[in-house]
Amino acid sequence: MSVSPLAVETPQEHLSLEALVTLLETIFLRHGTSAEVARSLAQNCAAAERDGAHSHGVFRIPGYVSTLKSGWVNGKAVPVVEDVAPAFVRVDAGNGFAQPALAAARALLVEKARHAGIAILAIRNSHHFAALWPDVEPFAEEGLVALSVVNSMTCVVPHGADRPLFGTNPIAFAAPQAAGDPIVFDLATSAIAHGDVQIAARKGERLPPGMGVDGLGQPTDDPKAILEGGALLPFGGHKGSALSMMVELLAAALTGGNFSFEFDWSNHPGAKTPWTGQLLIVIDPSKGAGQNFAERSQELIRQMHGVGLKRLPGDRRHRQREKSLREGVTLDVAELKQLRELAGL
Amino acid sequence: MSVSPLAVETPQEHLSLEALVTLLETIFLRHGTSAEVARSLAQNCAAAERDGAHSHGVFRIPGYVSTLKSGWVNGKAVPVVEDVAPAFVRVDAGNGFAQPALAAARALLVEKARHAGIAILAIRNSHHFAALWPDVEPFAEEGLVALSVVNSMTCVVPHGADRPLFGTNPIAFAAPQAAGDPIVFDLATSAIAHGDVQIAARKGERLPPGMGVDGLGQPTDDPKAILEGGALLPFGGHKGSALSMMVELLAAALTGGNFSFEFDWSNHPGAKTPWTGQLLIVIDPSKGAGQNFAERSQELIRQMHGVGLKRLPGDRRHRQREKSLREGVTLDVAELKQLRELAGL
Repeated sequence: MSVSPLAVETPQEHLSLEALVTLLETIFLRHGTSAEVARSLAQNCAAAERDGAHSHGVFRIPGYVSTLKSGWVNGKAVPVVEDVAPAFVRVDAGNGFAQPALAAARALLVEKARHAGIAILAIRNSHHFAALWPDVEPFAEEGLVALSVVNSMTCVVPHGADRPLFGTNPIAFAAPQAAGDPIVFDLATSAIAHGDVQIAARKGERLPPGMGVDGLGQPTDDPKAILEGGALLPFGGHKGSALSMMVELLAAALTGGNFSFEFDWSNHPGAKTPWTGQLLIVIDPSKGAGQNFAERSQELIRQMHGVGLKRLPGDRRHRQREKSLREGVTLDVAELKQLRELAGL
Repeated sequence: MSVSPLAVETPQEHLSLEALVTLLETIFLRHGTSAEVARSLAQNCAAAERDGAHSHGVFRIPGYVSTLKSGWVNGKAVPVVEDVAPAFVRVDAGNGFAQPALAAARALLVEKARHAGIAILAIRNSHHFAALWPDVEPFAEEGLVALSVVNSMTCVVPHGADRPLFGTNPIAFAAPQAAGDPIVFDLATSAIAHGDVQIAARKGERLPPGMGVDGLGQPTDDPKAILEGGALLPFGGHKGSALSMMVELLAAALTGGNFSFEFDWSNHPGAKTPWTGQLLIVIDPSKGAGQNFAERSQELIRQMHGVGLKRLPGDRRHRQREKSLREGVTLDVAELKQLRELAGL
């Protein structure tokens, strides 16, 4: 393997995915989570790093740790699954993380979707601090179509308003494809993901125009000004803003969770994880008429390449995934040192 | 009533909603639809005009008429409803319009949503030439949450591609609100609705930047250049493009309908209506935990006003609706004359 130009500037190390998961599990366990929660969060976070989704990879670990230390989240919560109706599952995450809540309800959700044709999972009283695509991709891998939304914490100014109210409120979608990786996207309804603003601030970089405003509500390209009293804008003007509002309604009002502006963590210094809700909708496409769905989705992708599209949503992640599985996950040496310290190693 | 400044330039006439529906029904019947189809399309089109949604109001009537004359659509199609699973309904629209197909399946869809907590309606072999919000708003009026997507005809260049492939592929959403009109939005995933480009072209107006490209793929603000060999762009860059792709997958691949690029109307000069599919998802929010959904959605709206939002999605439509119901629907005299001619009056 040749040394990349970047490696000259920042010393890097490669870790197998398994080793990274184990390292992250150790960190979570050491900071007060149950074994189930540690496993769930470690796999999720390592998968993001493996796929090159750095803003939701190990970059998030210090935030998880400070949140657990603050007592804001219950790292040992046991999710309570409620079978409400033939196609409706609810979970009370018990002030714990959303990923173990999804894991606890997943089998019932899939069973209902296959039987009824569609099913919904409403998670409330939950903390989601990760990328959303890892929640939907596995459904597509077993032939189902999945859609998920999660609200977060006030940092986005609704289109036409003066002050922030919405969270970054992502929408993630996954669909199977006959010959190839599932079609997956995960998009923040903000103009930029909060994690990417944090990364730009850390690197001292400026942002493209239209991403956010400063503390006076004026447009700015300074990530620090956005993070310190400023706010993000929705993507795509009034349309992205409408979708962000929809996410608040589905992920909070419908689940019984908090809106992005409702929780108060001021008594928990160090808390970083939004205490809201999450909605998933899973559809069994074999109930539709016509040809096999996965063959049809493959035809769409073929046609998209036919009109000149070079890169599809998820392509970069899949290429990085292959590389990581072949060569190990690449981490900065300084980053890895910090992780090992957090793990007490 | 005072004469508005506009009325001085363009002579206008007011028609009661009932009179407009009857006039439009007469037009549809005269051009070969069944009574059911005429009623369904007339109500839909008059509702758009009543709400000031001109690009989907009577402006569409000549397109409906030329399509019916061309033999492209079956104006007398009888939709076939299939009860596929506890929460899954399919309709073969029989090469007819989507609105009567929805009407035929609506009661079963609502029954399933109330019983199972969520239900899906997959309409295929259908033509949708109207606004999408009239399809979802009635669900919210009876306390349900509804989401619908419909694909259309190739006129949008996927982000990162050279040539058009997707339709304008709108997403519509409706949710009940305790004290007030339902929360409703209907957004094209293109940067601008096709009907608005047509209206700008007819008026000789330019478009804002970023809406479309000309026949050579170059950015243009000329609506005629977009309509004559050019194409639209998605809203919000790669994010809007991903949502447009999702609409193709849900409204066509999942229903068994055509993708926006699959139908060939070249043997039907005058045909304007895309022959695709439509998906609706209806959720019963009473199955969620916590407070009454409609009270929670009202709280969200209250908070949106609290951060300085003056106008919510749908506000302008509702104000125009009240005015139309009070004073009658306003139509240009020339427009009304054309409608009466089409009705043979």
